[in-house]
Amino acid sequence: MAPKNSAPHPPDAGTSQLLELIRTGRASTRQELVRMSGLSRSTVSQRLEGLLARGLVIAGDQGESMGGRPPGSLLFNPKAGFVLVADCGASQTHTGIADLGGDVLIGEITDRAIAEGPEGFLAWLEARLDEHLREASVDPALVRGVGVGLPGPVEHRKGRPVSPPIMPGWDGYPVAERLAETFSRPALVDNDVNIMALGEHRLAHNEVRDMLFVKVGTGIGCGLVLGGNIHRGAHGAAGDIGHIHVPGHDDVLCSCGNIGCLESVASGGALAAQLSDVLPRDAKVSDVVDHVLHGDDPRAVAAVRNAGREIGGVLAGLVNTCDPDVIVIGGQMALADRPLIAGIREIVYRRSLPLATHNLRIIKSSLDERAGIVGAALMVVERVLTDRGASVADAAGAP
Amino acid sequence: MAPKNSAPHPPDAGTSQLLELIRTGRASTRQELVRMSGLSRSTVSQRLEGLLARGLVIAGDQGESMGGRPPGSLLFNPKAGFVLVADCGASQTHTGIADLGGDVLIGEITDRAIAEGPEGFLAWLEARLDEHLREASVDPALVRGVGVGLPGPVEHRKGRPVSPPIMPGWDGYPVAERLAETFSRPALVDNDVNIMALGEHRLAHNEVRDMLFVKVGTGIGCGLVLGGNIHRGAHGAAGDIGHIHVPGHDDVLCSCGNIGCLESVASGGALAAQLSDVLPRDAKVSDVVDHVLHGDDPRAVAAVRNAGREIGGVLAGLVNTCDPDVIVIGGQMALADRPLIAGIREIVYRRSLPLATHNLRIIKSSLDERAGIVGAALMVVERVLTDRGASVADAAGAP
Repeated sequence: MAPKNSAPHPPDAGTSQLLELIRTGRASTRQELVRMSGLSRSTVSQRLEGLLARGLVIAGDQGESMGGRPPGSLLFNPKAGFVLVADCGASQTHTGIADLGGDVLIGEITDRAIAEGPEGFLAWLEARLDEHLREASVDPALVRGVGVGLPGPVEHRKGRPVSPPIMPGWDGYPVAERLAETFSRPALVDNDVNIMALGEHRLAHNEVRDMLFVKVGTGIGCGLVLGGNIHRGAHGAAGDIGHIHVPGHDDVLCSCGNIGCLESVASGGALAAQLSDVLPRDAKVSDVVDHVLHGDDPRAVAAVRNAGREIGGVLAGLVNTCDPDVIVIGGQMALADRPLIAGIREIVYRRSLPLATHNLRIIKSSLDERAGIVGAALMVVERVLTDRGASVADAAGAP
Repeated sequence: MAPKNSAPHPPDAGTSQLLELIRTGRASTRQELVRMSGLSRSTVSQRLEGLLARGLVIAGDQGESMGGRPPGSLLFNPKAGFVLVADCGASQTHTGIADLGGDVLIGEITDRAIAEGPEGFLAWLEARLDEHLREASVDPALVRGVGVGLPGPVEHRKGRPVSPPIMPGWDGYPVAERLAETFSRPALVDNDVNIMALGEHRLAHNEVRDMLFVKVGTGIGCGLVLGGNIHRGAHGAAGDIGHIHVPGHDDVLCSCGNIGCLESVASGGALAAQLSDVLPRDAKVSDVVDHVLHGDDPRAVAAVRNAGREIGGVLAGLVNTCDPDVIVIGGQMALADRPLIAGIREIVYRRSLPLATHNLRIIKSSLDERAGIVGAALMVVERVLTDRGASVADAAGAP
């Protein structure tokens, strides 16, 4: 069914809170649930019965999967459901199926891209996700939702792209509604860098509250995890750091129509142009990375390091503004991480305040190209099952 | 008593949630409270009894203050308590008393400043707040807490300054602990720009989720309200935009030891230096503002407009990063708001993405110099009474 946005609260208020306490490991007994939720003992029992019946929670006496916990312990069961996921890009798309813990059962990268417009692309995507279901022999009844990332600003509540610069024909298209109708499940759509940031944070840096995820690919974007949640901004445009002006490049025209944007001087696309004399015609970011890693070409390594410095100049400002615990560098260019991150660190540590950089880590993504689909799955898990950080009515429609 | 940080949850879990629903006007009947909280009817009744007994909530049949609401309506009572507040600065300090709605009963600006170090300054502050209590004839038993802003990074959880550049002798000093002990009430301390941002947001822009508050005074700082809450960052250093590098001024040494920081070229202090030939010796920011507004000096107006452009260049990056609904310009230099905001707007609208600036408002603070003490009061109200946006154990100690 399509997501419903009318009912202000699900009829079983408290269920999501209990599941969240169990899923995040903060409570594993009925006593802890009563104490930490503030719900009455009888409400906890009633809600818990529902969660056990749906298989989302398993009790200690039900099997061997409890790893030595005392009988009666309550544990989240990541295999109780699955999420159909896609991380759609300007040059390729990553599709797959993940379980409720973000474990990827099937992940496939295809050269299909969003440029063909929403109708054709989404028809292909829907068919592909259906095939994944069959390939993985997953019972369609266990699918809890659909999570998709798109390469542009997204109005997250409605699941629609908003004025996306590189997605012709997609502006305002009801992507989430369409997918929800096709699969009869809640569907959530977000900006691709936001889902990468979410995946990386939840699986690799869940211990910190403030994390920046910088994707350096054909373009440059940033996902902000602030206070543990994705910060999307008033128009879904937060993190669009690729179009911050950097000094000294006012002769470089950016695709956005402005001059001297970070993306126009330091992205994989910009590097491909700068190194065009030694790269194949119409070189992609992967060609740039190949040449840097294996081309024995100091000029190419220097170009990547310079790109890192330009990115570092912008990140120095973000460090002073957001004061993160960690900055994760991802996207295809992060495969050339040594010169890239060296350039970034050089400028951030020179330009940001000592208090903010003293414990700051600047590191490469640990999920690499999986970050997007992992994040897409966890976005759905957190919203559909546990309402984390959001009041979401369509959770009530989850099977 | 000193704040306790040990107990993970107050014994009356749910009380703060109910009070928050009533205080923000989202619920005004028992039925709404049961439905929106997920608590049982009996728990709601029990907690509500406590809130009514403490006078924090009043019921419709109790008086005429309900403004035509039906009998039985529940309403937050801002006069049920008071907060002792202070906004401490590098050149002057604003002290006062506010009620639980942020209404200022007493507000006083003194030339006393933090430079003398914590012992002497806090002894003076404590005496001054005691005098305010007598002047306002407020029953000390009705004081719910103490809220203080300091001009530097603050570790908010502990209420201690962290490596504050302009507060000699204050690094690590237990300000909140000391005030809590002196007044036997919970005490909260935050960065001064953060409390200004909170006050401005809650009283003037509560309808938006994402707001930036830029204080332009002797220095330059920014308070970030993101998703409705103050974003403090990993080290309490978020919003320190005064030390972001701006191009073209590498000959200007900043007080932080770096070169070309925004603060060193566009703050009130920097303007005082730029206009020193027409200002009194040791001119303050107020002298700059006076001269700009009444000096009939186009060069001074141009200097402020240029400062606005430099600030606008940095804010353009913040707009792309945070995508706020509104940017509020405060601090003493905002009194010269026409040339300052004109310069800011000029660059932000030229350099930020159209999606992010389409509905963006850039406006002057409406609370002016009261923003700090109003915010200090509301910080205490939200934390001590209602735990908004934080898990706070010291709330349990509120009288």
